[in-house]
Amino acid sequence: MTDAAPFITQALGLAAQALFLSNPNPRVGCVIASGAGAVLGQGFTQQAGGPHAEVVALRDAAASGNDVRGATAYVTLEPCAHQGRTGPCCDALIQAGIGRVVASIEDPNPLVGGQGFARLRAAGIDVQVGPGAQQSRELNIGFFSRMVRGMPWVRMKAAASLDGVTALANGTSQWITAPAARADGHAWRARACAVLTGIGTVLEDDPLLNVREVATPRQPHLVVVDSRLQTPLGARLFDVPGRRVFIYAADGHPDRAQALRARGATVIVLPNARGKVDLPAMLRDLGANGVNELHLEAGHKLNGSFLREGLVDELLLYLAPLLLGSGAHGLASWGPLQALADGVRMEFHGMQQLGPDLRLIARVAGRADF
Amino acid sequence: MTDAAPFITQALGLAAQALFLSNPNPRVGCVIASGAGAVLGQGFTQQAGGPHAEVVALRDAAASGNDVRGATAYVTLEPCAHQGRTGPCCDALIQAGIGRVVASIEDPNPLVGGQGFARLRAAGIDVQVGPGAQQSRELNIGFFSRMVRGMPWVRMKAAASLDGVTALANGTSQWITAPAARADGHAWRARACAVLTGIGTVLEDDPLLNVREVATPRQPHLVVVDSRLQTPLGARLFDVPGRRVFIYAADGHPDRAQALRARGATVIVLPNARGKVDLPAMLRDLGANGVNELHLEAGHKLNGSFLREGLVDELLLYLAPLLLGSGAHGLASWGPLQALADGVRMEFHGMQQLGPDLRLIARVAGRADF
Repeated sequence: MTDAAPFITQALGLAAQALFLSNPNPRVGCVIASGAGAVLGQGFTQQAGGPHAEVVALRDAAASGNDVRGATAYVTLEPCAHQGRTGPCCDALIQAGIGRVVASIEDPNPLVGGQGFARLRAAGIDVQVGPGAQQSRELNIGFFSRMVRGMPWVRMKAAASLDGVTALANGTSQWITAPAARADGHAWRARACAVLTGIGTVLEDDPLLNVREVATPRQPHLVVVDSRLQTPLGARLFDVPGRRVFIYAADGHPDRAQALRARGATVIVLPNARGKVDLPAMLRDLGANGVNELHLEAGHKLNGSFLREGLVDELLLYLAPLLLGSGAHGLASWGPLQALADGVRMEFHGMQQLGPDLRLIARVAGRADF
Repeated sequence: MTDAAPFITQALGLAAQALFLSNPNPRVGCVIASGAGAVLGQGFTQQAGGPHAEVVALRDAAASGNDVRGATAYVTLEPCAHQGRTGPCCDALIQAGIGRVVASIEDPNPLVGGQGFARLRAAGIDVQVGPGAQQSRELNIGFFSRMVRGMPWVRMKAAASLDGVTALANGTSQWITAPAARADGHAWRARACAVLTGIGTVLEDDPLLNVREVATPRQPHLVVVDSRLQTPLGARLFDVPGRRVFIYAADGHPDRAQALRARGATVIVLPNARGKVDLPAMLRDLGANGVNELHLEAGHKLNGSFLREGLVDELLLYLAPLLLGSGAHGLASWGPLQALADGVRMEFHGMQQLGPDLRLIARVAGRADF
């Protein structure tokens, strides 16, 4: 039997090409190869509403005049068996006469997981599951989070000096990091389903919070935590086409909500007992709205709320080789803690130098174990 | 002519073996090789008062019965021409009949630099200078600093969480980092000529500030910045044998100074106009006392003074994958700054994961250009 590893590696590379594209669908790649190891077709999942990886690969093979009957389809996620916006991929594979399917990992959706494999096997197709499982899950950490936990994977982004300063006392924070780190930050926005910020940032900086510094086929949605619906109707965030704006409030303020809806925003009122936005309920609502990865790019107050409530899964931290002293703003306002054990314990997940700066990725310990 | 690179690389490796050993002398390695490329002898500079690398290598060759006449000596620093505690290395090389010397870099001491090469050339020895210059200088950054600037290379060590916390508001800081990082911190102490701390740390923690977690043939000296001579006579820092304790004060307090001297301390009174210890004058005095690398391991107040006065050359920062919130102590108390340009701009010089933690080395931009 042909060794699956190189084809799965190729399929994972294809899946990575869907990073900015396929949301809220998972990033999936597919390679169809003959028993002799010739690649007959390949593809990756397209924009939502477009074909999944398997269908793209089958079409690619057909366009090249390649006969896929009896061939093996290497795919980085279980082919779907349900009728979504596109037909079930299982049926397409069966109809094309595929003889064997090697899939990295089962679909994490508890309602459909395993059904694809069962359908393929019922059609007499040999199915192998496992190669590339960890990489495929990692590439789709937000999709897995949404399917299993019903909530997005929450990635908190910050740029700080080596002494932990994210803004001077007078608010100055542009630019702590250099262009390479800032462009990289836009790439992380681009892969997210939504960027989230707080009303403080909206009022102070009037930011666009869209993807500008890297090419992207789609813009992530924008989420504003705005307890009292203070988002100005003239805020620049309304000027970005092709994305939804979700505003979560604690107080309905019917007139303001109405005006914001007229500006195109989706206003959701989700108060907690303290008169603030119920952040866990908001995350569940965003999950229900198809948000896989949530890119949290907020000020120290909202960051503090997310950390205090245990809602951050991952930290994306750009560190500039710079010292900015005391009396300034840090990453997040919460505490003071009484013991080191009360801190948020993480694990480094990646580090890379970007121009003069450093990018660190750290995950809350055990948080990816869902 | 034999390619010098492999022999200089070997000599640099030998020099690195003097890292904890040769202070305040530079870390120097020497390889003596025949024209055919056979290694005849090798060595590195021993503890102060012991032989330099060249003499160790010549003795090594003699002990093996190897004839070094006409051979090449590869040495990572210009051989000395002056009579120090040991005889001049140049004379030893000349007397042994060495035919050629390849040296990485000229001695940075402005009083003697170049004299060794001149003496060798006068004796008819072929001299080449340059291979491994950068590495040799780097290995001896403190020695070069003392010789050129008259002051130690000041390395500020800190352990912090990812949000810049070095101690909780209640003072808790043990242990932010894990054992691997702490042992590494002791290795950096071991290579320093002296460890420096402030009276605040002495009074709060009663630390030993010696090298314990790695094997070392010598202990670095201890320097305490203690403006009002408050170091307790019973402080544990007096219990470490084999090192000097320097206490720098702003106010003489003759009785206390006398008592501390009776405990074995060297008390130096160097006030500035604000009634504090004159830190630049202290650094010059430490330079005059043979301190090459000064390992600054202090609290946020003294760290702040060093940064405010522009006296830090390098930051050795251990980052734990941990968030500890606000209202805590940071690396250094200074500021608040009005503009990002007022910060201390550095450049990353190294990064390494140590167990769960990360070690970053950053240098103040341009500071090594002496």
